[in-house]
Amino acid sequence: MVKALALHPDRLFPADAATRDIARALYAAIADTPIVSPHGHTDPRWFADDAPWTDATSLLLAPDHYLYRMLYSQGVPLDALGVPDRNGVPATDPRAAWRLFAGHYHLFRGTPSRLWLDHVFAEVFGFEVALDAASADAYFDTIGEKLADDAFRPRALFDRFRIDFLATTEGAHDSLDAHHAIRASGWNGYVVTTYRPDGVIDVEHEAFAPAMARFAELTGEDVYGWKGYLAAHRRRRADFRAAGATATDHGHPTAATANLSDRECEALFGRIVGGGWSKADAELFRAQMLTEMAKMSVDDGMVMQIHPGSCRNHNAGLFASHGRDKGADIPTRTDYVHALRPLLDVVGNERDLTIILFTLDESTYARELAPLAGHYPCLKLGPAWWFHDSPEGMRRFREMTTETAGFYNTVGFNDDTRAFLSIPARHDVARRVDCAFLARLVAEHRLADWEAAELAQELTSGLVRRAYRIDD
Amino acid sequence: MVKALALHPDRLFPADAATRDIARALYAAIADTPIVSPHGHTDPRWFADDAPWTDATSLLLAPDHYLYRMLYSQGVPLDALGVPDRNGVPATDPRAAWRLFAGHYHLFRGTPSRLWLDHVFAEVFGFEVALDAASADAYFDTIGEKLADDAFRPRALFDRFRIDFLATTEGAHDSLDAHHAIRASGWNGYVVTTYRPDGVIDVEHEAFAPAMARFAELTGEDVYGWKGYLAAHRRRRADFRAAGATATDHGHPTAATANLSDRECEALFGRIVGGGWSKADAELFRAQMLTEMAKMSVDDGMVMQIHPGSCRNHNAGLFASHGRDKGADIPTRTDYVHALRPLLDVVGNERDLTIILFTLDESTYARELAPLAGHYPCLKLGPAWWFHDSPEGMRRFREMTTETAGFYNTVGFNDDTRAFLSIPARHDVARRVDCAFLARLVAEHRLADWEAAELAQELTSGLVRRAYRIDD
Amino acid sequence: MVKALALHPDRLFPADAATRDIARALYAAIADTPIVSPHGHTDPRWFADDAPWTDATSLLLAPDHYLYRMLYSQGVPLDALGVPDRNGVPATDPRAAWRLFAGHYHLFRGTPSRLWLDHVFAEVFGFEVALDAASADAYFDTIGEKLADDAFRPRALFDRFRIDFLATTEGAHDSLDAHHAIRASGWNGYVVTTYRPDGVIDVEHEAFAPAMARFAELTGEDVYGWKGYLAAHRRRRADFRAAGATATDHGHPTAATANLSDRECEALFGRIVGGGWSKADAELFRAQMLTEMAKMSVDDGMVMQIHPGSCRNHNAGLFASHGRDKGADIPTRTDYVHALRPLLDVVGNERDLTIILFTLDESTYARELAPLAGHYPCLKLGPAWWFHDSPEGMRRFREMTTETAGFYNTVGFNDDTRAFLSIPARHDVARRVDCAFLARLVAEHRLADWEAAELAQELTSGLVRRAYRIDD
Repeated sequence: MVKALALHPDRLFPADAATRDIARALYAAIADTPIVSPHGHTDPRWFADDAPWTDATSLLLAPDHYLYRMLYSQGVPLDALGVPDRNGVPATDPRAAWRLFAGHYHLFRGTPSRLWLDHVFAEVFGFEVALDAASADAYFDTIGEKLADDAFRPRALFDRFRIDFLATTEGAHDSLDAHHAIRASGWNGYVVTTYRPDGVIDVEHEAFAPAMARFAELTGEDVYGWKGYLAAHRRRRADFRAAGATATDHGHPTAATANLSDRECEALFGRIVGGGWSKADAELFRAQMLTEMAKMSVDDGMVMQIHPGSCRNHNAGLFASHGRDKGADIPTRTDYVHALRPLLDVVGNERDLTIILFTLDESTYARELAPLAGHYPCLKLGPAWWFHDSPEGMRRFREMTTETAGFYNTVGFNDDTRAFLSIPARHDVARRVDCAFLARLVAEHRLADWEAAELAQELTSGLVRRAYRIDD
Repeated sequence: MVKALALHPDRLFPADAATRDIARALYAAIADTPIVSPHGHTDPRWFADDAPWTDATSLLLAPDHYLYRMLYSQGVPLDALGVPDRNGVPATDPRAAWRLFAGHYHLFRGTPSRLWLDHVFAEVFGFEVALDAASADAYFDTIGEKLADDAFRPRALFDRFRIDFLATTEGAHDSLDAHHAIRASGWNGYVVTTYRPDGVIDVEHEAFAPAMARFAELTGEDVYGWKGYLAAHRRRRADFRAAGATATDHGHPTAATANLSDRECEALFGRIVGGGWSKADAELFRAQMLTEMAKMSVDDGMVMQIHPGSCRNHNAGLFASHGRDKGADIPTRTDYVHALRPLLDVVGNERDLTIILFTLDESTYARELAPLAGHYPCLKLGPAWWFHDSPEGMRRFREMTTETAGFYNTVGFNDDTRAFLSIPARHDVARRVDCAFLARLVAEHRLADWEAAELAQELTSGLVRRAYRIDD
Repeated sequence: MVKALALHPDRLFPADAATRDIARALYAAIADTPIVSPHGHTDPRWFADDAPWTDATSLLLAPDHYLYRMLYSQGVPLDALGVPDRNGVPATDPRAAWRLFAGHYHLFRGTPSRLWLDHVFAEVFGFEVALDAASADAYFDTIGEKLADDAFRPRALFDRFRIDFLATTEGAHDSLDAHHAIRASGWNGYVVTTYRPDGVIDVEHEAFAPAMARFAELTGEDVYGWKGYLAAHRRRRADFRAAGATATDHGHPTAATANLSDRECEALFGRIVGGGWSKADAELFRAQMLTEMAKMSVDDGMVMQIHPGSCRNHNAGLFASHGRDKGADIPTRTDYVHALRPLLDVVGNERDLTIILFTLDESTYARELAPLAGHYPCLKLGPAWWFHDSPEGMRRFREMTTETAGFYNTVGFNDDTRAFLSIPARHDVARRVDCAFLARLVAEHRLADWEAAELAQELTSGLVRRAYRIDD
């Protein structure tokens, strides 16, 4: 039996009729607001080259760890889905992989992936039939045909999606060639980079040594001496700013920060680059570098994002066979109150500094993050992140942060995705969930309707533009 | 004034009329599905002997730690409720105990015990008047009369409750005589055992030494040598499988696992049985044994359940006077991400292994358990457990796990009870709460109605039968 | 454009019409119940002297850390708001401070401060226009005029607010002169003190030495010897009881308790008063003193309140410039299960002792606190505290504690405020949220309507009066 695919106009709004009416009205006023995507992982070469994508599997399935982790959890091998391993892309027939995925699509019931994909299927590709084993081939064929059409090239979709601002993320040791090519092309899409120096800060990363070598090469600084190393960061931050970056990003195992003396820094750095470091040294160096980055942000005005608390590469066997970022990163309990104190001792009261905190540990929302952001001038709260970037997760974020931090210490939505086609879907989910939350406050007479309307605008556009200094 | 007792047909459904209608329809389709109870603590002798129970106090009150812990917290002595102490059952008049309980029945307002008991009173015994001090005697008399009737013997109720499968739990050092007697009797009730070896794994248990002696006797193995000890486990697992067991169960203070070398295992086991162990040794041995049990499950196909995180016998005075399991076990913060890694390094990617994880620490649902189960092929999530086996607890479980783990990495409901008469009540609560959750997803246009209907069947029957390999 | 200020009669009730009707009926029956405020930080001199307050800024803004912490988080300097620093009250024009606050009033959207203030503005001062930059002067003027009126003096407002019982908090080293003056005045307001000995227990407090000196002076005991120190506590507890106190209060960094031998206590106390203490000694001494206080409570019948888990003075720079209690206290993760065990080993099974536990770590509600309070006779749960004393916070408290602890192991509402004018607002919010919670239970057929009505009375009045022994 053919199952229809249709996005209901009231999806994600509360079932209560009076509250739903309020949510509808709030949403109608902001639904068409252009998208600001201040943090994510799309590939800037897509916009530099504007080359067409080829097929459903390589575009939508093989790169999306949300999708293949779920299938893997139910016993589907990654190779059968076309997911690259350490030897590269497996010789899997893309159509066969797509069929396998389609046959397991029921696994995603109740997940955000399902919401995002159905939105992509319906809105981007115009499907009116749901994906399942029976429709798998029709999906694969239609998506392949559409992707060959110029209207589905990256820049055309960027325009169609009404994206006003898109930040990618590059490492301190990465070239910015794609960004320079975008600028040189004369295309008017507003795509910028973000400075993510983890590769030259995390000595436990297996590619630390080559990253440092490249860092030296790109900057011409003596990156193996503490002063030269800091100078190299300053130089690359300037390069990134010149390529439009307004922000840095830091993905650390914990939120630990440190405030060492110069002498201690020199000694620690000596162990880091000299090879005699312990695990505690590696952690302490990451901790100290958050404080160094914050101090540089005071100088150059870059907004700082901290994404802590993921235990990377949890599955040793899978890491050996397939490498990083294969759906095996697991959140861990994360402390902020004690961890951030050394950094805050240095820059906590700076009014012109913005540090955006993210978490994978929801127990910190009401207990630590909202109280911190509701006090320190430099701190703001990033939106619900990763596994929590979902209707229930976003609802909990608002319910657990708003009463202490208010709305104005938050920064709107981040899609944080490498799945470019899902960006409108993700922003739409966030807008609907925010409007649903505001509608409840109005229905319970905790906010006036005109205040909720102002806040819907702020949550969609105002807060993110100001926090990320997009219009500066 | 006499208060009526009546179970409302819409109980536990959402108040919103449109959502309630959806919940009603979902529930109507699964309400009469036979019960599968894959994990619990009923006494198999009940079904072997089919002897009548005697009175309300000894059947419903004195063995139920949910009930007497609440009364104890309000100053009622356990002896007055007929709860056994280290000297046995106190000489308390059962009717007086029942009156005391009835006079405090208001304490249970808002608790699941109240829902379960009212269901038992109304459905099993046919009461139409609520329990309170005024009705206490009528309750005591009526229950006593009914229990004397053959229709209220264990096997008759088993049939009346439409129980399709019931697993009890026995220790590695326990006889399986009751199970053998059930089989030999020719009765067609499907009652099996579960292998729970904690008694011969937890050296900190006061009865470890006699349990080991009995373990040696039952298996004929040299259980005081590491190889013989493992062989004894294999032998008893085979005995349990022969008695119908499809699963093992492990109740440890933490979720710690270990992956020691053979040599380290030998040395550790030497300290455990030699008496020179430290607290750290005891913990490490429990940790290693989880991994050993998982490896045996790979070999013999038994499903493994891990129930960690209870701080047992928290009340030292009460433990001294009354012993274990007297309502003084308190949940503790529990780590899974780091704790399970050694075990997962060994068996994490096994597709034919099933490990069902439980928790008493709800902060791990979205942060650790759902991400782990949504990735590892061997992991599934057990339902909300113990103190969280309640309407709000089950709702939080769905809200915090579904978006990352999906429904299909969960395993339906466990009643986990020794209160046989409450089994239908507990399953009914779980079915209603699940239908309420699904109804909300439908009302918010996050699931189609036909998908929710399929899921209601899965949550009631399909998932549990497959996870526990009941039809294998 | 002028925005109206009007308190909607259905505020904080559920939007669902049927549930709202139930909430309305429950609330109507308890809305006018006199206020019992068993724990808070109002200044007893207000009631002793009955002097008029002067202006909006010094009464409502400058002392309220909820307000200025939010403004500070958005870059507003504390001096500009009239907040005192270490040199005293800054020379800020109160009207200018008020204007600054009014211009930022939108920051409080979605926060409890907004609900409380709007209630004060509408109900206490009769405003019908919302506070914003345009109405700031009118507000400042009107409030100033009203405060000069006798009807707005402390005692007149106390009567108007229908306060039946109000407890303030004084240190072990504080005079009780204000309380004695209240008694001597013949005024019939029921205002009592609470014994808070932290100042002479926390050796890490910067004013420990002068507090001890004053403690010695007030008691005439040798407070520098362990036996004399305990005797001094007993003496002051008797003084406090004579001034009406029914309770003690303990604000510790953690919930740690200890149960040392006399000899260990002597040695530890020697280090504490001798100056040779370590941080671990300071913590151990606080831990031991909780147990000592509990033992004294067994003797003298005072109810013991434990408020653990705040990391005080997190902002080092602000502490240096402005001192304590300036909005820079941040909650921390808090353990109760292990921490309370030494104390519970001593007094856990005492039926005539009441220890009321509070938390800033909501993850402990369902995991630790409800299971503990649902077992130990001496334990009860204080209401949602500090940052969690808000509609969402109070809802979570009920949802996460009721199913295990029941309603009867809770103690009603605490306003815990120094903002006297907001007391009716805070109690009104609590009553509405409780009625909303009860209404949901009734609408979902989990409670009968008459039970909910009884519980609404208990949550408003019965539980608090009994727990704090107000009518003893």
